[in-house]
Amino acid sequence: MTKPKRIAVLGSTGSVGRQTLDVIAQLPERFEVVGLAAGRNTEAFAQQITKHTPKYAVCAADSPLVTEAIAAVGAAWTPMEEMAVADDVDIVLVGTAGAAGLEPTIAALRAGKSVAIANKEVLVMAGHLIRRAMLEGGGDMRPVDSEHSAIWQCLWGEEGHEIRRILLTASGGSFRDLDDSELARVTPEQALNHPTWNMGDKITVDSATLMNKGMETIEAMWLFDVPMDKVEVILHRESIVHSMVEFSDGSVKAQLGVPDMRLPIQCALAYPDRMPTPPAPELNLAEIGSLTFGKPDLKRFPCLQHAMDAGREGGTLPAVMAAADEVAVAQFLAGGIGFLDIAKIIGRVMRKHRSVDDPSLEAVLEADAWARAAAKEELAEVGV
Amino acid sequence: MTKPKRIAVLGSTGSVGRQTLDVIAQLPERFEVVGLAAGRNTEAFAQQITKHTPKYAVCAADSPLVTEAIAAVGAAWTPMEEMAVADDVDIVLVGTAGAAGLEPTIAALRAGKSVAIANKEVLVMAGHLIRRAMLEGGGDMRPVDSEHSAIWQCLWGEEGHEIRRILLTASGGSFRDLDDSELARVTPEQALNHPTWNMGDKITVDSATLMNKGMETIEAMWLFDVPMDKVEVILHRESIVHSMVEFSDGSVKAQLGVPDMRLPIQCALAYPDRMPTPPAPELNLAEIGSLTFGKPDLKRFPCLQHAMDAGREGGTLPAVMAAADEVAVAQFLAGGIGFLDIAKIIGRVMRKHRSVDDPSLEAVLEADAWARAAAKEELAEVGV
Repeated sequence: MTKPKRIAVLGSTGSVGRQTLDVIAQLPERFEVVGLAAGRNTEAFAQQITKHTPKYAVCAADSPLVTEAIAAVGAAWTPMEEMAVADDVDIVLVGTAGAAGLEPTIAALRAGKSVAIANKEVLVMAGHLIRRAMLEGGGDMRPVDSEHSAIWQCLWGEEGHEIRRILLTASGGSFRDLDDSELARVTPEQALNHPTWNMGDKITVDSATLMNKGMETIEAMWLFDVPMDKVEVILHRESIVHSMVEFSDGSVKAQLGVPDMRLPIQCALAYPDRMPTPPAPELNLAEIGSLTFGKPDLKRFPCLQHAMDAGREGGTLPAVMAAADEVAVAQFLAGGIGFLDIAKIIGRVMRKHRSVDDPSLEAVLEADAWARAAAKEELAEVGV
Repeated sequence: MTKPKRIAVLGSTGSVGRQTLDVIAQLPERFEVVGLAAGRNTEAFAQQITKHTPKYAVCAADSPLVTEAIAAVGAAWTPMEEMAVADDVDIVLVGTAGAAGLEPTIAALRAGKSVAIANKEVLVMAGHLIRRAMLEGGGDMRPVDSEHSAIWQCLWGEEGHEIRRILLTASGGSFRDLDDSELARVTPEQALNHPTWNMGDKITVDSATLMNKGMETIEAMWLFDVPMDKVEVILHRESIVHSMVEFSDGSVKAQLGVPDMRLPIQCALAYPDRMPTPPAPELNLAEIGSLTFGKPDLKRFPCLQHAMDAGREGGTLPAVMAAADEVAVAQFLAGGIGFLDIAKIIGRVMRKHRSVDDPSLEAVLEADAWARAAAKEELAEVGV
């Protein structure tokens, strides 16, 4: 009997965080919650603390409810960066949104921990620093995104083989069949209605613009150490093939399954084992009947092109793109700009930026701040 | 620099044998031909000997041409069973047709060799003996069939994980869309026109009846150590997904590619490496557009049901089925019986047989001889 793996869940009240706690709760002999960190959802967080009784806890918001819950279970108030490197933490799941996960991720990898990454922003903003921290500290990265988990699973047992192409599948988002004039009239309500996954608002809009897929191309570069020209996005409406890898001999491996985030989460926690507990219902391909594939339309969805350009260019440009996207999407959700304006604003901010090579964390965060300001200027110019 | 792997190719003038020699010739720094064995295609065999200069050679036919070629390159006339266990042989590729490969396969595995198996009959007839020889001798089996190679590749790095299902894909054969009355009128010429692979006559008819797929279900049982109820045949017309494995957590892995036998051959020889040399052209899924899946119709294609029954039952029944199939297919090709009669004759012979549990090689060969006689009796009864 192996000892349970001790897990710190950063961003525990978010969608991935909650599902992670579900997976852990199903396999108590394998996994144990030792740390929990959350943002502003204090009520849910207090309940999680009471239920999972972590040793370490921290909350971005100042909440008596949380303070009380922490005291009741005898947990120590511990900043994420400290929790991520604690001796009794084996795996850090980074499920925080935005830049908040950046420093804990780097610290954990530098301390030789396994890091389950569910936050794409950290790799988009500072993939080079994260990769370097991993190589220096001897930690390892385990993707939690369904696409990257698929690629990762296809690479098990293939670590020594050259990757010829990564085929990243994309459902195409809610608006894959709309033309430009229809896209121009899309409302936030329509954008929030994603066909397959139930996610947060920002990522749902990013899925509709294909910015989410674009960020995934950058994520793939850093997770699997390949240049952007080896990453190919392929449209696949059914979201059954979660992604593929082509090897040097032309053999292609794919990972498939009924969409269910608990599978990649469980893989990331259980690796190198597989656990029989649920998670996904059995795949019935005969019933599904057909799986379709196509090329994404970069003209209708320029965010994908922006992201691939940013990934190719590197430096601070991906962070700038991500920050501009955040500002633009927030404005779209507030009704201030149209759907097609999101890509336009990102493109303008990217063109204005002078990228810094091999930036430090400070330089990345500076570029992020610069991009937010620049995006707001662009918004002001269009009268928002 | 590793030493080239020394390979004996049994059945070198057959389709797989010839392609194996192609693969070897492309990678002279990795592979070396040390043994060649062939049947009756003496002219081609003499040329192969001259070209590949093996140390060991043997031919079923008595041919001065072959004897001369062997003498000219200084090879030693060596029976297959001896060649298969020679100290300077690392990998034995078994590409012989029918029962001829049985004893060399068992001998090689018992001697701890790697055996690349391209002959399904050996596993259908005596899978239990082959598996036992492997476990006793410490050899390993490497499938060369595209489907089993796919399953095998999906299992790399997953050796410790429980297989929930093997999803064996089937193109459905040339007659997948014909109804019973159309199937009854199928001619040998039509049967020999396979949509995807260019193979021998017998196997092409077996593909059309789905007996080939049925034999592959039995092959999968023995290669991957799973019971028949974990093997599921799934129709997939495009022959792009070569097969899939579902693991205990519901994750499914598939191996895909443009159909090209050289890929599984190369995988079997190069394992655990992958070699960049051709073999397959790049897979363009966006161009292919869609991959379809369905259930096979066991009523229209009863040979598949026969094989799965035989695999489930075990003992001498699979050998009996394979022998009856050989007789029936030969008779169909000679114009003596109709297409649907193939399954009927096999079914009758199987029902008459009293299976022996855990049979010895002698018992298997006896059952084989019994079945051939029994099938001929059945033919006589229908007036052939």
